[in-house]
Amino acid sequence: MKKPSAPVETADRVAGNGLLHRRVFLKQGLGFGLVASTVALTGRSLYAADPAGLDRGGFARPPWMQQPGAEFSLYGSPSPHEDQVVRFASPNRVMRMNGASWTPLHKLEGTITPNGLHYERHHNGVPQIDPELHRLLIHGDVQRPLQFSVEDLLRYPMVSKICFIECGGNSNAGWNSQPSQAEAGYFHGLASNSEWTGIPMATLLGEAGVNPSGQWLIAEGADAFAMQISVPLEKAMADGMLALYQNGERLRPENGYPMRLVLPGWEGVTNVKWLHRVKITDQPVMARNETSKYTELLPSGKARMFTFTIEAKSLILSPSGGMVLKSGPGLYQITGLAWSGNGKIKKVEVSADDGKTWAEADLQAPVLDRAFTRFRIPWQWNGSPAVLMSRAIDETGYMQPSRRELLASRGRHGFYHYNAIVTWSVDSSGNVTHVYEKDEPEVMDDGEISIDAGWD
Amino acid sequence: MKKPSAPVETADRVAGNGLLHRRVFLKQGLGFGLVASTVALTGRSLYAADPAGLDRGGFARPPWMQQPGAEFSLYGSPSPHEDQVVRFASPNRVMRMNGASWTPLHKLEGTITPNGLHYERHHNGVPQIDPELHRLLIHGDVQRPLQFSVEDLLRYPMVSKICFIECGGNSNAGWNSQPSQAEAGYFHGLASNSEWTGIPMATLLGEAGVNPSGQWLIAEGADAFAMQISVPLEKAMADGMLALYQNGERLRPENGYPMRLVLPGWEGVTNVKWLHRVKITDQPVMARNETSKYTELLPSGKARMFTFTIEAKSLILSPSGGMVLKSGPGLYQITGLAWSGNGKIKKVEVSADDGKTWAEADLQAPVLDRAFTRFRIPWQWNGSPAVLMSRAIDETGYMQPSRRELLASRGRHGFYHYNAIVTWSVDSSGNVTHVYEKDEPEVMDDGEISIDAGWD
Repeated sequence: MKKPSAPVETADRVAGNGLLHRRVFLKQGLGFGLVASTVALTGRSLYAADPAGLDRGGFARPPWMQQPGAEFSLYGSPSPHEDQVVRFASPNRVMRMNGASWTPLHKLEGTITPNGLHYERHHNGVPQIDPELHRLLIHGDVQRPLQFSVEDLLRYPMVSKICFIECGGNSNAGWNSQPSQAEAGYFHGLASNSEWTGIPMATLLGEAGVNPSGQWLIAEGADAFAMQISVPLEKAMADGMLALYQNGERLRPENGYPMRLVLPGWEGVTNVKWLHRVKITDQPVMARNETSKYTELLPSGKARMFTFTIEAKSLILSPSGGMVLKSGPGLYQITGLAWSGNGKIKKVEVSADDGKTWAEADLQAPVLDRAFTRFRIPWQWNGSPAVLMSRAIDETGYMQPSRRELLASRGRHGFYHYNAIVTWSVDSSGNVTHVYEKDEPEVMDDGEISIDAGWD
Repeated sequence: MKKPSAPVETADRVAGNGLLHRRVFLKQGLGFGLVASTVALTGRSLYAADPAGLDRGGFARPPWMQQPGAEFSLYGSPSPHEDQVVRFASPNRVMRMNGASWTPLHKLEGTITPNGLHYERHHNGVPQIDPELHRLLIHGDVQRPLQFSVEDLLRYPMVSKICFIECGGNSNAGWNSQPSQAEAGYFHGLASNSEWTGIPMATLLGEAGVNPSGQWLIAEGADAFAMQISVPLEKAMADGMLALYQNGERLRPENGYPMRLVLPGWEGVTNVKWLHRVKITDQPVMARNETSKYTELLPSGKARMFTFTIEAKSLILSPSGGMVLKSGPGLYQITGLAWSGNGKIKKVEVSADDGKTWAEADLQAPVLDRAFTRFRIPWQWNGSPAVLMSRAIDETGYMQPSRRELLASRGRHGFYHYNAIVTWSVDSSGNVTHVYEKDEPEVMDDGEISIDAGWD
């Protein structure tokens, strides 16, 4: 394996154990290009003598250049060679329509989640809704209860927003006493990022005319679970969207076709899919998913509930658990995602020395409000064991907590909203595993969470 | 059909024939919500008495709430009810692997084109490339000819950019003497917009070491056509990207899997797909697609060639040709897309009175450099015939030309880079058709262009 030999200048070192300024990639490549000695440079122009490109001086013509390719397709699919880039489905063992599927974040790049890979969480399967028959009812504490067909709604004025949706239970294996060795996306991938387009809820609620007593919006999905959740009216009016399009096309069935609620920055369960009923009330409905679920006991004995907002989070996706630094010591790009339900990511800091020193990573532009933000930083791995971490700081000044800090405040009764720093250990062979911080706080262990058994 | 009855205030009128300020949608809805009189408001809470939501006071439970839905899928697909939202393929009648397929822009919303609907242009089909066997060669006027495997390249530092790619021949039916009645996407949809992620060409070319004599980059695709194009080295070094990912996932086969060149803002043909060879030279290769194609004769008798940059363009997508304003006179949202290969869109102006008066449309944030920009503006249609137009102005100050202006400068010998204002006529029944400006310039007619016969 070739090793990059260019020495790294001191001025390019931005933190301990090999974290570098991004300009190093402009000064030197990785050195993985093999010198193409078999390509005879004959002195004549390959192209002028051979406009069809038949003569390539020993550069063999691969089989797919020797016969016509496939015909046009009306709707494309990924290459069959990428058939391992899929969601990881974790259904309940008995009732297979209840569960979740994870976005393979560790196999993706950039910030947009392709629609085929957006995470799923269903309680009773994906309803096969006929849009001709679907209706949206707005009723309760309103002056005019209204009912809309899909066709009606498609004529309404729309807005678009690129934002993430994250399940409140994402990353919850982090509460366990032993670090999960699931691949990064299959651990933290109940989070995805799309361009949503739809009608401001304020437009529709304005048309119905909310009475002064109306303080909550009860959203109900048209699935067999009749998913219900209570949303403060203020949030729905501020930036709630009745989403009809996802990344340009109509919603996918598993993401709420023909329409869903999108509440930017709020936990996934509030972004009710297959929305067919909105009732305005003076109090929350106290549905199952806001009482027995999506609440949690704090060390103080008090319970957290209605914890809507996703707090800032980040994780390194490459390298990450289960990967191997195959090319040995040398230059790598560390990259991952950060997001916050409270606004834009202000910065992401990365450490390669177990949290002793930190350097600011480069953020992919544009950095958007409550959207996935890609961070990248060059790293010169010296071949010794290393411990990699990232931490997000959002525009409110909030910094993603260490695991110690999170456990101290929330205990191991925690189940939702796990957003502690994720720590990857690289051994001298380049194998990457998930580890916890060295100084685990001693907290009461309240039992383990299993990702594939607990759905109900 | 219900008609909105709220009067429009004078202060909300922003141009002639009903163009309105966007605040009107905050003041009044469209009035399409039917009063849901069948929903008995019984005075008891539907929810408190019935946490499972079984009792909905006459609001019937649709069939998909009465049985479990579908299981989890590893890679999702659109709803079968959206099976008409597809690309329009136009293959050569004899050689079906040569041709193009259009993005159905008129059926999409927002700015991102889903990968399954990105436009295609192939000369000899989509090669079925095995990424294990694919190699990228960089040779010619370089110090070190280099060869890369896909696996090598996936370790290189990457960057991302959301940008459009548009075929230089997009919209070319506009050169015809009679206005095409194809739907908007099947006329102007050889343009799509994705988040591309890959390696800066500057990184790879830097590693190979370009000699001072190297001024051009000859890119060759690994398809059976061995597609070749010449790109000035300066552009490749400035912002050329070897793209490996499209909207988060690896490239689709029809968009160049496993790798393509992306040259933001430059005509599609230069964004060579299935890239397998880059040769640095001191002059262009004068390949077929830069001599007999992608050049055009001007009225002066001189020829345009190497017309790389896409100039600013816009069109209204809703309403657009073939649509009907079904709900009759009333409030509508006019929406469409604008883009420019020279930077950001500064503004889009819309006219509803055949170009007599213009109003500035709202632009979806964030407005990105060389990316699709969605514009929207409310319109109160009074039921009389109306003529709708949009024109884009980019950050260089360039304004999209009228058809008259374009024909005057380019003649009807034109074939590429048609970016004139698109004009839609609405008749009193609400039927929308494509029309040309009233005062057609008299130019020599050089024959008609047929979208389904000319591919070669």
